[in-house]
Amino acid sequence: MAYGGYSYFDKDYVPGRDDFVTVLWVKTKDKFERTAEGLAAESSVGTWTKLTTMNQRVWDNLRARVFRVKKASPHSGFVWIAYPYDHFDSKNLLQILASIRGNIFGLKEIEELRFLDMQLPRKFQRQYPGPKVGIKELRKIVGSRRRPHVGTIVKPKVGLTAKEWAAVAEKAFMGGLDMVKDDENLVDQKFCRWKDRAARVIDAAERAKDETGDGKIYVANITDELPRMLERVDWLVEHGWRQAMIDVYMIGIAGTREIINELHRKRFLIHAHRAGHGAETRGPWGVGYITWEKIWRLFGVSSLHTGTGVGKMEGSYLEIKKYGEAAHGDVEAMEPFFLEQKWDRSIKPIMPVASGGLHPGLVEGVVEIYGTDVTIMAGGGVHGHPGGTFYGAKAHRAAGDAMGEGVTLEKKAEKVPELREALNKWGYVKGADVRKQLERERKAFRRNAFRYGWDLDRVLQG
Amino acid sequence: MAYGGYSYFDKDYVPGRDDFVTVLWVKTKDKFERTAEGLAAESSVGTWTKLTTMNQRVWDNLRARVFRVKKASPHSGFVWIAYPYDHFDSKNLLQILASIRGNIFGLKEIEELRFLDMQLPRKFQRQYPGPKVGIKELRKIVGSRRRPHVGTIVKPKVGLTAKEWAAVAEKAFMGGLDMVKDDENLVDQKFCRWKDRAARVIDAAERAKDETGDGKIYVANITDELPRMLERVDWLVEHGWRQAMIDVYMIGIAGTREIINELHRKRFLIHAHRAGHGAETRGPWGVGYITWEKIWRLFGVSSLHTGTGVGKMEGSYLEIKKYGEAAHGDVEAMEPFFLEQKWDRSIKPIMPVASGGLHPGLVEGVVEIYGTDVTIMAGGGVHGHPGGTFYGAKAHRAAGDAMGEGVTLEKKAEKVPELREALNKWGYVKGADVRKQLERERKAFRRNAFRYGWDLDRVLQG
Repeated sequence: MAYGGYSYFDKDYVPGRDDFVTVLWVKTKDKFERTAEGLAAESSVGTWTKLTTMNQRVWDNLRARVFRVKKASPHSGFVWIAYPYDHFDSKNLLQILASIRGNIFGLKEIEELRFLDMQLPRKFQRQYPGPKVGIKELRKIVGSRRRPHVGTIVKPKVGLTAKEWAAVAEKAFMGGLDMVKDDENLVDQKFCRWKDRAARVIDAAERAKDETGDGKIYVANITDELPRMLERVDWLVEHGWRQAMIDVYMIGIAGTREIINELHRKRFLIHAHRAGHGAETRGPWGVGYITWEKIWRLFGVSSLHTGTGVGKMEGSYLEIKKYGEAAHGDVEAMEPFFLEQKWDRSIKPIMPVASGGLHPGLVEGVVEIYGTDVTIMAGGGVHGHPGGTFYGAKAHRAAGDAMGEGVTLEKKAEKVPELREALNKWGYVKGADVRKQLERERKAFRRNAFRYGWDLDRVLQG
Repeated sequence: MAYGGYSYFDKDYVPGRDDFVTVLWVKTKDKFERTAEGLAAESSVGTWTKLTTMNQRVWDNLRARVFRVKKASPHSGFVWIAYPYDHFDSKNLLQILASIRGNIFGLKEIEELRFLDMQLPRKFQRQYPGPKVGIKELRKIVGSRRRPHVGTIVKPKVGLTAKEWAAVAEKAFMGGLDMVKDDENLVDQKFCRWKDRAARVIDAAERAKDETGDGKIYVANITDELPRMLERVDWLVEHGWRQAMIDVYMIGIAGTREIINELHRKRFLIHAHRAGHGAETRGPWGVGYITWEKIWRLFGVSSLHTGTGVGKMEGSYLEIKKYGEAAHGDVEAMEPFFLEQKWDRSIKPIMPVASGGLHPGLVEGVVEIYGTDVTIMAGGGVHGHPGGTFYGAKAHRAAGDAMGEGVTLEKKAEKVPELREALNKWGYVKGADVRKQLERERKAFRRNAFRYGWDLDRVLQG
């Protein structure tokens, strides 16, 4: 086989520790092997036709190598590609991504293409700051130890006035929640101006801190064009508040890097929301979320949405567990979906955040997936509580506390009637059941890892 | 039907001229109608459960409305949603997108979701500059009239030294090409430093201008983190050169807006590459490319990659034709895939760019799709010419000239042996055949518009 006159296969090649390694799923109208080579060609030195301008030096030193494949059919399979470090403008992640996950998504002969994962060499990582406020610092702000952090998104997502909004936030804080966040679609609307809201909620958080003795996190959503984000950062600093939320996928790579650098200079806690990512991270075309997660950890967010497993958002338990792993430390290989990833020791762990369709009855399940180093957000699952926000917050905090104490929600509910009410209303998923499900998924994975192509959900359920 | 206790259907509603309107394809495990409402709820004021904090004012003034649906099965169909202007932080496109195409991509019950298009009200558009250098100004730089612009990407994509690279570029310019661009994976690598390359190519472009009498475009790829992009802009200005390329999808929305504003201040021609967009714009999950195209035109790029139809990149002819339409002027509705889009007169037309697997023999086909207001890039199709780059450039330019003169490539090749050679090597697609194919696609569309769900390719081919 060959592509544009050259063969990119090199099955004896063992990637060096400075190589960038990627793994992809591809389905093609062409022969699998030819497309596998096409992916390496188009993402490195080649194109569709033989060139008069090619030379041996370029070929020897800079080409990508397909060093492993796992064929699923004559027209589909998994492809592992290694790229030499100097192939890239290696201080420039945008250039690297434009190569390894760029034009290949436009090739006509391809019917499915998933960029499943990329392995980042330590040499590359050391160019980035990683988090300044990581898990340890987050816990110090709150004053927590082993328990998960619990929080809420004020609902309805949009429409409340700043005064109404802050009143809901205050009830949530007073009820015991650690964190309140703006929703992804609330920034600076006419009916609820950003500064007015932020000022009121900061006051509420400070009152609640005095009242409850716990540190409080309020991450104001500053997501916008850069000049307005920078203004908001200044405003927060002037008001003595160093916590903010950014919508990393919407902002994009260059803007996120820029605003994080500024937030680092000002020593902020940085909460990263990921609205819209699913357009790229679900289905037979796209880029696995772990790739994005690595980027945001490298850039230095403090906490990052990584899915719920048990809530309204998608993702099998074992998949979500891997995102937890990538947030907390190194990632063990689970091929072909996840490559091994060692982190340079300079890149601190971040807090994974579970959010979307959660309520107190799901807290045990979330902790089974993530461990207690997790922030569990419930919106409707707090404000929809029969007793309203304050009681909803008490119920959710009690659920979190139970996890720190190592008791079940059932047990905890005996002493906390608000939790009892929440479990009665929304039901209760036992940690033990989630553990069993995880075990089933592990078995299914061993059986099916290469069987359903790109579709990890099917692999884990099948 | 209802979602979280509320119904978002309002079939009598007629969107106002300031409303944002979107159209989506969805396939769901739930009932279609319920998910249609869920999409409106999650992207506006609702969530999965009834809230104690909701109120009538919010509901009356700010909710999204499902004003039309077209059901394909009990579990799938198209959904049209209207959002009131004041629902949004309407100067903040990131907030708007985080709402209308944000969390909905994470909902668990959904099996396919394509955000097909969005309609931008004029009131919203007037907040943006649009292009400063548009088609008219591009033509003035080159000194062209009706013919398409022709250009090349130096190949191999990476590996040549700056000196080698510039020598290839010079041959291309001397052979008659209007434009040379860096490839998306070439910025500032060790083997070819950005400044060294740019300085040499600018000199080459100036020599070629003197020699040929035609203005030349060289768009240096400045794509990087913002501080380095800004440095490069300054460097280019110091060298008297006001043309640059940015990889808009990789840079992301906030970074792109920021760098374009700076490039506008410095009166640059801005070429927009779109590496990686296919991860989001192909397949059953994602966002239609027209959405991205509208954003980049609004922000003010001069030229933008919009597909080839006839080359190695994906896209049926009629689809690519719509992207040409959106670049050149208003878009006529082609429902459900494209909504009508009127542009405010302040937002100038931009030059669509066809690039990827093209060669001189395809120029007639490209012009059939786009008209002559198009830039046709050939990489391998220039440097792979049997006579090398210079002759390849002559062939490609002759093909472009033929289109301005209204003669066929066959006819032109009688007088231009380099073109004859190119047609012999790579073949020739007649404009008349592309016209027939477009007519077939139009008929197929009338027959199948709502028949294959999200899959426009199948609609047009079927």
